[in-house]
Amino acid sequence: MKIRKFSSAVLIVSALTVSAASHSAEHPNLIMTRAGVEQIREELGKIPLFDATLRSVQAEVDAEFAMGIDTPIPKDFSGGYTHERHKQNFLIAEKAGMLFQILEDEKYAVYVRDMLFQYEEMYPDLPLHPQERSYARGKLFWQCLNEANWLVYMSQAYDAIHDWLSPEERAQLEDNLFRPFADFISVENPQFFNRVHNHSTWGAAAVGMIGLVMGDDDLVQRALYGIEDDSLVAGARDDDGGFIREEGQQAGFLANIDEPFSPEGYYTEGPYYQRYAMYPFLIFAVGLQNVKPELGIFQHKNRVLLRSVDVLLNLSDADGEFFPLNDGQKGMSYHSRELVSAVNVAYHFGGGDPQLLNIAEQQGQVLLNDAGFSVAKGIRDGASRPFTKRSLNLSDGADGNQGGVAILRQGDEALTLVFKYSAQGLSHGHYDKLSFSLFEQGEEVFQDYGMARFVNIEQKGGGNYLEENTTWAKQTIAHNTLTQNEISHFEGRYEIGSRHHSELHFFDAAADDVQVVSARETNAYPGTEMLRTMAMIKGESFEKPYVLDILKVNSGGENQYDLPFYFMGQAITANFAFEAQAELAALGEENGYQHLYLEAAGTPVSGNAKFSWLGKRGFYTLTSATESSDELLFTRIGANDPDYNLRRDAALMIRRKGAGNTIFVSILEPHGNYSPVSEIARNANSNVAELKVIHDDRDYTAVTMEDSSGQTVIFILSNTDSSTAAAHRLEIDSRTFDWTGPFHYTRIN
Amino acid sequence: MKIRKFSSAVLIVSALTVSAASHSAEHPNLIMTRAGVEQIREELGKIPLFDATLRSVQAEVDAEFAMGIDTPIPKDFSGGYTHERHKQNFLIAEKAGMLFQILEDEKYAVYVRDMLFQYEEMYPDLPLHPQERSYARGKLFWQCLNEANWLVYMSQAYDAIHDWLSPEERAQLEDNLFRPFADFISVENPQFFNRVHNHSTWGAAAVGMIGLVMGDDDLVQRALYGIEDDSLVAGARDDDGGFIREEGQQAGFLANIDEPFSPEGYYTEGPYYQRYAMYPFLIFAVGLQNVKPELGIFQHKNRVLLRSVDVLLNLSDADGEFFPLNDGQKGMSYHSRELVSAVNVAYHFGGGDPQLLNIAEQQGQVLLNDAGFSVAKGIRDGASRPFTKRSLNLSDGADGNQGGVAILRQGDEALTLVFKYSAQGLSHGHYDKLSFSLFEQGEEVFQDYGMARFVNIEQKGGGNYLEENTTWAKQTIAHNTLTQNEISHFEGRYEIGSRHHSELHFFDAAADDVQVVSARETNAYPGTEMLRTMAMIKGESFEKPYVLDILKVNSGGENQYDLPFYFMGQAITANFAFEAQAELAALGEENGYQHLYLEAAGTPVSGNAKFSWLGKRGFYTLTSATESSDELLFTRIGANDPDYNLRRDAALMIRRKGAGNTIFVSILEPHGNYSPVSEIARNANSNVAELKVIHDDRDYTAVTMEDSSGQTVIFILSNTDSSTAAAHRLEIDSRTFDWTGPFHYTRIN
Repeated sequence: MKIRKFSSAVLIVSALTVSAASHSAEHPNLIMTRAGVEQIREELGKIPLFDATLRSVQAEVDAEFAMGIDTPIPKDFSGGYTHERHKQNFLIAEKAGMLFQILEDEKYAVYVRDMLFQYEEMYPDLPLHPQERSYARGKLFWQCLNEANWLVYMSQAYDAIHDWLSPEERAQLEDNLFRPFADFISVENPQFFNRVHNHSTWGAAAVGMIGLVMGDDDLVQRALYGIEDDSLVAGARDDDGGFIREEGQQAGFLANIDEPFSPEGYYTEGPYYQRYAMYPFLIFAVGLQNVKPELGIFQHKNRVLLRSVDVLLNLSDADGEFFPLNDGQKGMSYHSRELVSAVNVAYHFGGGDPQLLNIAEQQGQVLLNDAGFSVAKGIRDGASRPFTKRSLNLSDGADGNQGGVAILRQGDEALTLVFKYSAQGLSHGHYDKLSFSLFEQGEEVFQDYGMARFVNIEQKGGGNYLEENTTWAKQTIAHNTLTQNEISHFEGRYEIGSRHHSELHFFDAAADDVQVVSARETNAYPGTEMLRTMAMIKGESFEKPYVLDILKVNSGGENQYDLPFYFMGQAITANFAFEAQAELAALGEENGYQHLYLEAAGTPVSGNAKFSWLGKRGFYTLTSATESSDELLFTRIGANDPDYNLRRDAALMIRRKGAGNTIFVSILEPHGNYSPVSEIARNANSNVAELKVIHDDRDYTAVTMEDSSGQTVIFILSNTDSSTAAAHRLEIDSRTFDWTGPFHYTRIN
Repeated sequence: MKIRKFSSAVLIVSALTVSAASHSAEHPNLIMTRAGVEQIREELGKIPLFDATLRSVQAEVDAEFAMGIDTPIPKDFSGGYTHERHKQNFLIAEKAGMLFQILEDEKYAVYVRDMLFQYEEMYPDLPLHPQERSYARGKLFWQCLNEANWLVYMSQAYDAIHDWLSPEERAQLEDNLFRPFADFISVENPQFFNRVHNHSTWGAAAVGMIGLVMGDDDLVQRALYGIEDDSLVAGARDDDGGFIREEGQQAGFLANIDEPFSPEGYYTEGPYYQRYAMYPFLIFAVGLQNVKPELGIFQHKNRVLLRSVDVLLNLSDADGEFFPLNDGQKGMSYHSRELVSAVNVAYHFGGGDPQLLNIAEQQGQVLLNDAGFSVAKGIRDGASRPFTKRSLNLSDGADGNQGGVAILRQGDEALTLVFKYSAQGLSHGHYDKLSFSLFEQGEEVFQDYGMARFVNIEQKGGGNYLEENTTWAKQTIAHNTLTQNEISHFEGRYEIGSRHHSELHFFDAAADDVQVVSARETNAYPGTEMLRTMAMIKGESFEKPYVLDILKVNSGGENQYDLPFYFMGQAITANFAFEAQAELAALGEENGYQHLYLEAAGTPVSGNAKFSWLGKRGFYTLTSATESSDELLFTRIGANDPDYNLRRDAALMIRRKGAGNTIFVSILEPHGNYSPVSEIARNANSNVAELKVIHDDRDYTAVTMEDSSGQTVIFILSNTDSSTAAAHRLEIDSRTFDWTGPFHYTRIN
């Protein structure tokens, strides 16, 4: 809060002078600068990546020119023509503005001007958009969110032609289009604008950026600090089920930085939404830095905006695709346009990290502005260095004390584990405490389902969230974690879930051969405590690293526990008998169970249940230390899905009934591979001979694993004391183990 | 037969002299030649692709050296250790032989010699392999087929070190190992050796090649012409259900060229098995060409061996993966080692087609012999030209009069249709007359299931054909073609199917914008005639080409017709209501129906049933002119599959009951695309407004299609007269159409 007061003071003083000065300031000054443009013009033809991007953007814009300008009467949801046309308009206008500045060809300015005046003519009479689904309907688009997108881009287009327009033209556009537009998405829609939410980040950036271009400091103030008196009441909800206003909540751009980002730069909604929000965060920050450098926006909260770019790049698999934590669309990656911006801005304003150039090379394009120019120049000059992703533990929450997300990596992303023990993640959060997903070289081994939504595919519910997002994708049973008594964590209720988070027990990725994360959840099921520990281990006689998974449950009651593993691939073999169902019925009635078919059921035949499958990168085996009364259920998603909104993916679920305190221990083991071209199956069998829990009490859990070569290792976990300095002694079967720290891993024969 | 007699005569004469001469001939002379080796040695370090392959092979062989030689007691099926070890042995020995010749490093010769003597020591006492599944059990391997593989490779290894060994060593190896080995897989197993089958091709090559190296002309004769008196009886079967001996059947290598290859070079079992057989066909041919050039083996049957390489390359999708006609493993491609050989040999001995160099570049490796050297040199010298795949019609049968396979391609493989109207395809054939599959840029749009087998994955039935290959993959309902009364074509009986083939009506790929294939099947269901016509059309207002599919059925009876479309992707929308089943049960009891779950059922709401999905390359819509009483069934594979041997893939099936003469007309339309990175859905809706059958009688069928821009085209088919010269006149709704040839396509408004 200190920063906020300080910044306010600076702004109030400067507002008096800047407001007048700004109108006489030379444009462009928002994202492009005059000095930057001059340098770009001088070096045209000398910077390959910049020149290539320029050619490609020019071709794209020129192709649009050929079709003329269309600003249709708004009608459609996303995916429909009017929506996509207005979206394309602002994207092209922004590019045309840049082309005008760089190429000094007036046809681009004329295009932007003509488009803006078509909007200027239609806007004053536009009613609310006819689609009524949104909690904050727009005019051009069905929701204010897209309206804000429009203004963020159009601000840049306007800035590019600002000085080329006559004062009368500027006045006409500002009075009839931009200022009413900014007011509409802010003071007229406080439920959209005055929140901490990615929607509001867009709103703040939109209002602030047009304010910066117009030199309207009222708008800039509104963008930074929100609306003072918005008459919103605590507890109201948006159409995703998120709270619009919580008690004591701040608003405005700075609050939207302060709240959802943890100190390390993790964004509480998860990477898919962080990617979406990064563009307005960074592009408005660039505008503020250029027009109001005294605000020091990039220094805010210990450089959190710049840090978050690095975090986001690390929240991706080997192909650059973001982990689908919470609501996330699979396939979204750092090749998206938002990440081109983010990487360019982080490089230009963040000190020139040469690893970012490596990402920019992969993206194959840059921004056509000062930041993009820096990047392209850096690449030309050979400054690029490989971007190395690492194991890391990211705290969640504004102060970093609301759980987190841990990523364990081995062997240059050969194996990547994503472990979630975070806070709820606002309205896009799923009920999946202590869940995980696992990737081998960019391919899913155990998947997180992601979201039930086909973004911008109009035929699927207008491209919006589908009912199955709530009934399936958010439910606990849709994730690789424990469901108790067929009820989701926090009863699947947002108001409960958003009050809680898991607690880190410890994280240790210092040694390459054994990396461990362990976290505890005590609120998902009152009276039940879950401690889940996942260790990524490079075993001596194993070809690839594997994951040891220990889930210890303490509960007074007698419960049914379901622990599913959503494996990806073709079943190969199991060491237990299972019987296929003659007819497939849903496994349950609610909480996601209604969407699972039970395909087959079996019981363990020995102390270990083993199941192997063939996935895209090779063979995989799940070895679980089971109890003889466990049920082993093969399920498939797709029941009660009348519109085919869900994928037909499989899982193996371990079901344990009538249990209170118990423990689930498994090894997730990638091994070998298969090529349909050579037809050679290499290392197709599990190398785990026996997995055993040899000790389990309040303080310690000890597991041994004998491999197929006869070697045995032991992993001992300190369940209560996570101190790295604490010395431990434990006797098991008259053998004494001494170690320091929260876990002990060693070979015992 | 003339060729046979002539060749025999030549061989008998030469045998007398060559037999003695051969022993004094200088080795290597089989696949490598002394002259070739000398040239290779001279140019080492100057031919990049050859040098790269040499380095890679050397690294592979040296790594094997480090592990020593192991020739374990035979025990396992394919996929198991002893099988894979013996297989690896012959592959490495052959490579070591080449390295010895090229690098003149004796350690490679020592390795081959030591390995051969280990085999020489164990072979005389080896019993039959303990696995009893095969109709022709081997000794080192569970079947003679793999035994023959061993000898084909070991002949080359032996040839490479032949002159380096002492006469005593050669005598020992030949007397105790090679000659008994060759006898075992020929005279002792005539049911394996003396057939027309890919197994026998391997057998002939094995016996012939070791015969060439040893200068044993008896073996060469046996290889070329088979065993005279084999005591096999007509009608016996192998374990795949194929006939071992049919009445009047020839045997030997030349018969194996004459029978299964059509004059154009299509191999009747399909490309997966053609690929497998190409290696022995070509490698033995190279040996014959080098040792017995007077035989003119590459000229045999109008150069069919060389032509078949070009055909095989054309039987692949845009990624080089072979179409899975009949039993075929998906993913097998021209990157396989067999195709490296085929392409190298076809280039070296076939006149140096520069397009083959393009394939070799993609393969990224060459053979380390004369042929590979030619290819690598051609590439270095810049002779490579793009390999252009084309639309083509391939006849089936030794004389090219047993139906065929047609491939239609548009826009540089953007869209590829595979249409099958062939003969049965020996024991690997499926019961799917007039079926099709469709690819867009290497991705399946409508799939052919392929085979139910996990080649060399031991856990899945020893890597052999699974029961589901018979109960599912071979059945008609597993394919995109018509099943009548839930019974497969030819009752699913091999002895009936192998007597029949479909007949081409016509094929016309002369015009790029309308390519048509049409074929008739009258034997699959006695009393029922099916005429299926598929036209690939580049429509004026369509972004991508589409396929018009007209299936006309004439039958006296009242039948149930099922026409499934195995679409690949996520269902997006349908224009008809359908109801999901509460519980999933099998659709039927036999003939493949027992493996299909019925997921949902609907009925058409208008004259056209439309269904859209999202696949890997974009959106697709199936538009069908339906009757109001049709049932539209969504099915999924996987029922009665207790071991998860089948994939869970979907289909939309049109079911028409109580029909005699009828017609199914559909448009298979690729359109637009979707990117999860840009989140833009482009051209997501079908452009077909209405599809109508406006005329249908014995002689003519006429279909109109109005597109979403209001344009209408007509396609008229001459059902009986396929002459390209015939003039036709047809009046429909008082409009007269005049045209020449078997079809007429034109815009009518």
